[in-house]
Amino acid sequence: MPEKQQTENPATEQQLTVASAGESGLLARIFPLLPEGTATLLGPGDDAAVVAAPDGRVVVSIDTQTQDQDFRLHWNNGYASTGHDVGWKSAAQNLSDMNAMGAVPHSLLISLTLPPSTPVAWVEGFARGVHDAVRTLGADVAVVGGDLGRGREISVTATAMGNLAGAAPALRSGARPGDVVAVAGTLGRAAAGFALLESDVPFGSLDAPQRALMDAQCRPTPPLGSGPRALAAGVTAMMDVSDGLLKDASRLARASGCTLVLDAVVLASFAAALLPAATLLAGAGHAAEALALGWAVGGGEDFALLSTFPGSDPVPDGFTVIGSVVPTAPGRDHDAVLAGGSGDDAPDTTRGWDHFGAA
Amino acid sequence: MPEKQQTENPATEQQLTVASAGESGLLARIFPLLPEGTATLLGPGDDAAVVAAPDGRVVVSIDTQTQDQDFRLHWNNGYASTGHDVGWKSAAQNLSDMNAMGAVPHSLLISLTLPPSTPVAWVEGFARGVHDAVRTLGADVAVVGGDLGRGREISVTATAMGNLAGAAPALRSGARPGDVVAVAGTLGRAAAGFALLESDVPFGSLDAPQRALMDAQCRPTPPLGSGPRALAAGVTAMMDVSDGLLKDASRLARASGCTLVLDAVVLASFAAALLPAATLLAGAGHAAEALALGWAVGGGEDFALLSTFPGSDPVPDGFTVIGSVVPTAPGRDHDAVLAGGSGDDAPDTTRGWDHFGAA
Repeated sequence: MPEKQQTENPATEQQLTVASAGESGLLARIFPLLPEGTATLLGPGDDAAVVAAPDGRVVVSIDTQTQDQDFRLHWNNGYASTGHDVGWKSAAQNLSDMNAMGAVPHSLLISLTLPPSTPVAWVEGFARGVHDAVRTLGADVAVVGGDLGRGREISVTATAMGNLAGAAPALRSGARPGDVVAVAGTLGRAAAGFALLESDVPFGSLDAPQRALMDAQCRPTPPLGSGPRALAAGVTAMMDVSDGLLKDASRLARASGCTLVLDAVVLASFAAALLPAATLLAGAGHAAEALALGWAVGGGEDFALLSTFPGSDPVPDGFTVIGSVVPTAPGRDHDAVLAGGSGDDAPDTTRGWDHFGAA
Repeated sequence: MPEKQQTENPATEQQLTVASAGESGLLARIFPLLPEGTATLLGPGDDAAVVAAPDGRVVVSIDTQTQDQDFRLHWNNGYASTGHDVGWKSAAQNLSDMNAMGAVPHSLLISLTLPPSTPVAWVEGFARGVHDAVRTLGADVAVVGGDLGRGREISVTATAMGNLAGAAPALRSGARPGDVVAVAGTLGRAAAGFALLESDVPFGSLDAPQRALMDAQCRPTPPLGSGPRALAAGVTAMMDVSDGLLKDASRLARASGCTLVLDAVVLASFAAALLPAATLLAGAGHAAEALALGWAVGGGEDFALLSTFPGSDPVPDGFTVIGSVVPTAPGRDHDAVLAGGSGDDAPDTTRGWDHFGAA
């Protein structure tokens, strides 16, 4: 049993790869690192898991991150994504989908495809990253199942499951004229972090606030808790911002059959916090302001919540009003528009992320 | 909108790739092809789906197939895996995990990672393959969610969900001395098909029974229905055979803390049906017999059910008794052993599939 000899030999621990550890050896190392939760009726180790669905329903989604598409192992600014980063982001991103429905997440299943040369230490870091994301985000979430396989590039697919506790889910299609548009969480920080990671400015030279922007890209912190709170407060439509505020608001507008008017002045206040990083990359002045606004309205991956609420009610704690829902003008498409900004600086509303590069 | 122009231009239909179709264009093409089912409360299109869990629990598993690891696009014998094959196998393999717990599957989520050059027609074939597997296997299963992304190789991850209707799940750990060991479904046919696909014998020269073995590898037909039937009949332990009968029986023996004695004579009858293909590859006689027996006891991917039942009761329809459960002898490991075969022909019990190549 070569795997056992290698596992017990401390001299080879640093060089241990997933190929030398083997599938069962790797599973034995990472299972104890993963989070456990109270909804698990049967955890990992059999052909499938069994989880509780107390209201007779389960909310479920799936999402994949692939190396060099959704994350880089080696960024242009010298930073190397750790397994901890990738595990954290996979968990956070998938739990955000539960938040977007107003559900409380309880379970994750994670399938990990790895090149045989991947260090076991990277995979252990991945498991710790999942654990730390769950704990930091305050979630009662277990990893109840998984799969390990080999491939030419690292790929992570996670399935998240959640509980609506008897409530109707928040859909994208429920916004109505007269509602207000509100967000919970941050906007543009992950995009600013992405720009820093892809820049020529060495990450070692960045100050703490700039490092925090890199963290927002590599270890995002979606506002879990805000989704169920929005549901309790009568949210009419909701989704998470994963491809950029304007692109996602446009989707919500189309699904709801109305127009979302977003307040460029309020959004500029989100952008203002990004101005130091924008200045670092674009120089002071007009160009930096446009760059920061572009991050705030065009950047995804903060996994903020985009919601609409009846205009008559106050929005719940943690939400900021950024616009309103109006009827779509005759002859126009249902869409999201920025209003109140200077025409020159208004970003292209078609910006956002398409996984195959089409508009 | 270049995607729309291309979609509507029949001249470019054959050359259309996922890169030119774009994510939303691709989704619009494949959604209508996917199966729908009665457990779906909210289907694809929002941040997550909502599915019914009538007994307040859900059975769930995840599994990934990666190009050149779990399937080949181009086989040595000239056969090219179609999207239909890959979609079918992904669905069948994941539904088998539900079957292995005794659950009735009701939902699938599928994440598809594709090189940008992948033809749209391949992806449409994939969706039809999922549909056809579900229908052919007689399942009431919907694809309730998914994800599309790009990567350097094709990778498919599916999550399956199922319903136990109030029963306790069948675990690997419940076998007890005095039980009989039984299988439902086929053994070794997928392995024989794999050997034909990897051989130098052009697939065009194969006869219908040999083509059917290739089909068993590329479009497996796990015995859905046998799992819930086994549960109703008092099955004590169950799993699906995905890595080979002996390897998987050994896992069941370890989980249950006993020894599984498998009858080599009965298993030889499974091998006998594989003899023509074995003869084609190994020549007539002893070598072919050994090869066929190796497929039957070492080959996975038929997704047969390996089960143990109380020895006092008849096994349910569709199951064949292949052995018995006995206490593990002092000083021996809990394991599965072949008994009744000639010593020389007895296959290596460590055979089977490890995704990183370790034993």
